[in-house]
Amino acid sequence: MKIIKGGVTTPKGFLAGSASCGIKKSGKTDLALLFSTSPCVATGTFTTNKVKSGSVVLCMQRIAKGVSQGVIVNSGNANCCVGKKEIEDAMEITEEVSARLGIKKNLMLMASTGIIGRPLPAGKIKSGLSSLINDLSPSNGTKFAKAIMTTDTVHKEIAVKINIKGREIIIAGAVKGAGMICPNMATMLAFFTTDAAIKKKALNQAFKESIYDSFNKITVDGDMSTNDSAIIFANGQAGNSVIKNNTRDYTAFLDAIKFVTKELSRKIILDGEGATRFVEIIVKGAKTENTAGRVARHIANSNLVKTMIAGGDPNWGRIAASAGSSGTDITPACMDIYFGNVLVMKNGAGVNVSGGLLLGIFKKKEIKIIVDLKSGKFSDRVWTCDFTEKYVRINAEYET
Amino acid sequence: MKIIKGGVTTPKGFLAGSASCGIKKSGKTDLALLFSTSPCVATGTFTTNKVKSGSVVLCMQRIAKGVSQGVIVNSGNANCCVGKKEIEDAMEITEEVSARLGIKKNLMLMASTGIIGRPLPAGKIKSGLSSLINDLSPSNGTKFAKAIMTTDTVHKEIAVKINIKGREIIIAGAVKGAGMICPNMATMLAFFTTDAAIKKKALNQAFKESIYDSFNKITVDGDMSTNDSAIIFANGQAGNSVIKNNTRDYTAFLDAIKFVTKELSRKIILDGEGATRFVEIIVKGAKTENTAGRVARHIANSNLVKTMIAGGDPNWGRIAASAGSSGTDITPACMDIYFGNVLVMKNGAGVNVSGGLLLGIFKKKEIKIIVDLKSGKFSDRVWTCDFTEKYVRINAEYET
Repeated sequence: MKIIKGGVTTPKGFLAGSASCGIKKSGKTDLALLFSTSPCVATGTFTTNKVKSGSVVLCMQRIAKGVSQGVIVNSGNANCCVGKKEIEDAMEITEEVSARLGIKKNLMLMASTGIIGRPLPAGKIKSGLSSLINDLSPSNGTKFAKAIMTTDTVHKEIAVKINIKGREIIIAGAVKGAGMICPNMATMLAFFTTDAAIKKKALNQAFKESIYDSFNKITVDGDMSTNDSAIIFANGQAGNSVIKNNTRDYTAFLDAIKFVTKELSRKIILDGEGATRFVEIIVKGAKTENTAGRVARHIANSNLVKTMIAGGDPNWGRIAASAGSSGTDITPACMDIYFGNVLVMKNGAGVNVSGGLLLGIFKKKEIKIIVDLKSGKFSDRVWTCDFTEKYVRINAEYET
Repeated sequence: MKIIKGGVTTPKGFLAGSASCGIKKSGKTDLALLFSTSPCVATGTFTTNKVKSGSVVLCMQRIAKGVSQGVIVNSGNANCCVGKKEIEDAMEITEEVSARLGIKKNLMLMASTGIIGRPLPAGKIKSGLSSLINDLSPSNGTKFAKAIMTTDTVHKEIAVKINIKGREIIIAGAVKGAGMICPNMATMLAFFTTDAAIKKKALNQAFKESIYDSFNKITVDGDMSTNDSAIIFANGQAGNSVIKNNTRDYTAFLDAIKFVTKELSRKIILDGEGATRFVEIIVKGAKTENTAGRVARHIANSNLVKTMIAGGDPNWGRIAASAGSSGTDITPACMDIYFGNVLVMKNGAGVNVSGGLLLGIFKKKEIKIIVDLKSGKFSDRVWTCDFTEKYVRINAEYET
């Protein structure tokens, strides 16, 4: 596998475009379109929030058949908590796009991100469709990644190349993140493209496994969105022999999509609202995988742990307190805590460590925290960021 | 029932004192002692965190018998995550205090609050005991309330008077709060005194019910402490006929202790770290009380909801999103949301309301949010505060 420069339009047969229709007051691009020149095998994972955007509801219905050809995305408005109009707007807009592109209407998906509870300005979006479609080009992957941003400070995209029986296959992705990011779901919006020919079942399995190990293991603020959508399109234009489950080709594909999703989930954390540090929390020695995951997530969502990291303060007691209140059956007297490779708590009690050594670890951009429960064989990890005054500022000032 | 000026030493027979032994670098008082001149019926509730301070472990053991005569409190050090020394220190210090006061050692309790993971400076505390005990006086209730503070900005105490069959009974309390405050447990440290004569069983039941409805329904930051302790001492010096369960006297006592615990839990929220607003979240129309409680707590712990309130921004979509991700079986299409008495979301969709009206509500110091699930008869409420940059600053700069 090789990382290459590029994004969602780097795989063969994918076009993208962006436009500004006036949803964002700033005038920045707020419409994005991703389109494959031929129908794709497609699958997706969506928010488990009971409150779902109409755009998510439409996607879930349409993608259930496993075939799709593109997605229109608007940023700046979540198309959520508006009532029936949500789904009506999503249907009308996708129908209009499909008609203009000459494809069946059920092959076009929609994703939305932004403020909740305000009716989608469907008129503005429809009047922006001409310039959006005119902008479609195989070189506009980055423009697509930029148009889906909200509070993100950088666009996030990646592309990798693998070789399957002499055929070059490209897998790429673009995501947006920043806030309302919490594990146990998809992520805000994530779009993946590949020119691989792959069976529907194989794509489903590989994507599910990748998402579980990437976007479902990150958290910025513990708040689950109403709009999380992660969608992958595989158009088969690489011309490889079709990838099936339980084959060497499948493993190669799985490794690559795992890498792509993990890298993009990492980029979301690095660009978390107000974040200054990337934090990896590893919980090992747990009785069950569930315990490991719950302890890791509980620590990752503790405001006291996150503000401590923002302050560069190696106050490991907050980690112990958070682990102890995770609602799991842990034994404090067995618990060890490490900052990086430095043991700071052993069997539930502090270890005498030089403060300078710890301060050095906390000055780094990336911090690893290991909690060893020494009660079993299971482990899990979560990625998160620190919690700064800037996060509060961004979210207190987010305008409705 | 009448509110009177006073605190934990206002009921007959209670003395308190404070001293500074050097745990706090600021030189502020960091030792506090509460003492009844006669043995008390006593009960307490303690943190459910698996990681518990040695002081909590000692209290839980000693109070199990239902008799106690006082508590020594140190602030600035949690006496937690230090290993066996925690319990050894707590035993040694309480034994020394008991000996000096001439009471049985098992009648003295201990509570600690402050940084986790640093050995208690037992030597400093012991050398401070003479001045602490010399300071004991029936007029030092406020000094006690001040000496237990950490990041609190104001001391918190209250006293009320009730009349039972012609006898005047006083119930009083002092608490500290500020951070690491989350429901489903006791609170940080809360001490209650009364000169009522009351049966052990009646005191247990009244206290349990009061704590459930007060400290267990507040949250500052969703982080559960290792040291939460709420303890009540009843010394019977009012000379009333002993209060028993299921009597009119019991009901009068229960009403008063409920009022005292509720008022003090309210003061904790008002003094939450960095807080500028008091927020009441009421969830009604739930299928079960458990659902109502879970939805209310989930909203109260959402950083996005709390920062929105800090910003004075009536962005109710964040409340809907938080309710939807509470892990309960709610039906978004049935859900209504009110700010104060103003309906902002009806049946899952936004209602057209004047922005000025909402901004007016959000400018007030106290904000009420009502979520009506319209699916049943159960309700619950949680009190919380907003989430400001100052909270992050306080906790990023909290020194280890």
